[in-house]
Amino acid sequence: MQARIYVTLKQGVLDPQGEAVRHALGAMGFDGVHGVRQGKLLDVELDAASRDEAEARLREMCEKLLANTVIEDFRVELL
Amino acid sequence: MQARIYVTLKQGVLDPQGEAVRHALGAMGFDGVHGVRQGKLLDVELDAASRDEAEARLREMCEKLLANTVIEDFRVELL
Repeated sequence: MQARIYVTLKQGVLDPQGEAVRHALGAMGFDGVHGVRQGKLLDVELDAASRDEAEARLREMCEKLLANTVIEDFRVELL
Repeated sequence: MQARIYVTLKQGVLDPQGEAVRHALGAMGFDGVHGVRQGKLLDVELDAASRDEAEARLREMCEKLLANTVIEDFRVELL
């Protein structure tokens, strides 16, 4: 089974990486860029008896390893 | 205007980061994970006179800075 996981910073959490990208874009002449927030995406291929089982296992993977749930949100999308 | 950019490794390009995540998941007892490929997502807020202009500018940002087009693909999604 194929899934895509999206990991993004929670609202209100500062994103120095995104800010650095924004400044770099500005320095390259791309004006009018008000905000850049950077996140992760993970394409995972795994065995699962059902879509529900896959979703549950992927959520557990996020909670235990793939996302820092103190500052990040995650979303699991089964493909 | 709000947009989300997805940057992923091209097919065939090795992903040591994804492999490291896969091994870590295995070590934590998540078996049956056959592949993990890691990418980036960027949420961008920018001024643009039209959706076409926004798309064109975002594609140019990807080609010039946000993606390494030798090994990465990118996709622009206007929200």
